[in-house]
Amino acid sequence: MSSVFQINHVAIVVEDIEAALKFWRDGLGLDVTHVEDVPDQDSVVAFLPTGQSEVELVKPTSEESGIARYLQRHGPGMHHICFEVGDIDQCLQRLKKMEIRLINDEPVIGTGGKKIAFIHPESTHGVLVELYQLTAEEPRIRMERARKLASRARARSQMAAAGMMAFIRSLREGGNGRDDN
Amino acid sequence: MSSVFQINHVAIVVEDIEAALKFWRDGLGLDVTHVEDVPDQDSVVAFLPTGQSEVELVKPTSEESGIARYLQRHGPGMHHICFEVGDIDQCLQRLKKMEIRLINDEPVIGTGGKKIAFIHPESTHGVLVELYQLTAEEPRIRMERARKLASRARARSQMAAAGMMAFIRSLREGGNGRDDN
Repeated sequence: MSSVFQINHVAIVVEDIEAALKFWRDGLGLDVTHVEDVPDQDSVVAFLPTGQSEVELVKPTSEESGIARYLQRHGPGMHHICFEVGDIDQCLQRLKKMEIRLINDEPVIGTGGKKIAFIHPESTHGVLVELYQLTAEEPRIRMERARKLASRARARSQMAAAGMMAFIRSLREGGNGRDDN
Repeated sequence: MSSVFQINHVAIVVEDIEAALKFWRDGLGLDVTHVEDVPDQDSVVAFLPTGQSEVELVKPTSEESGIARYLQRHGPGMHHICFEVGDIDQCLQRLKKMEIRLINDEPVIGTGGKKIAFIHPESTHGVLVELYQLTAEEPRIRMERARKLASRARARSQMAAAGMMAFIRSLREGGNGRDDN
């Protein structure tokens, strides 16, 4: 039985997200759910889900990151493919036994608490491969983050409503010719 | 609404299918459904499905094909990504209007009657993109092919059974000391 569930995403490194969306969103017809700054990967990422997988357009935001150097050397194009696996620790154990060259010997905790690890292209026939395991923490952390954002959004709209009320009151109190009844 | 259903496959060009399977099948744990000679693409392809999509390991069988030249220039690695779309003609129309550079202006009929077309990396920010539309003909053609193979397999096993019967009869008729009762 396969220990891989599905392709989680294919990452494409680009020089300009807006320009790339002209093809990937407007031309190809993929939907964009969001564009996000991902500081721990020194990049801005546009997420374009399709079926069980996503296309990720990645623009480096520093010149030192691996993805920035890849862009300088190779120009834009497919950068890596990520597979969702059931048990990343077991996968890495098996790969180590086979003397496959890993970039991360142990899983790294990524955005939202997910576990990820990269495998070196030298051992995969030229492809940078990412493994990803959804952990119980990831939905909890993401939910918590969404709740905090919702509460900030509510606070903002309450502030805006209060500001509007104050403005209306100021108009009425300023006596702009309208009756106060 | 998106006109793309899902990633159909990611094609990885390799120098040696058996060697590549050491990582992609044995290391990563993907299942291989079959390895097939695809003469109209001058290649041998190993199919490794995962979720809704497939990884395809492609080894060129001629030195003149695009994929062979890619391998000579860039070495092994990700070659193209293929998306399944609902209406390939409509997609190509839209892309042409946007002056996106197409490799195939019209859909090409691929293995099994499917419709495919490639988009030039120049217009996609460095990625060779294939579009694929499942047509009503594809399952019919594939079914027909499988039926013919099944009938050949039956004929073969009947020939083998008949041969075995003739052999047994020859033993009995040769009189090997056993009684004919």
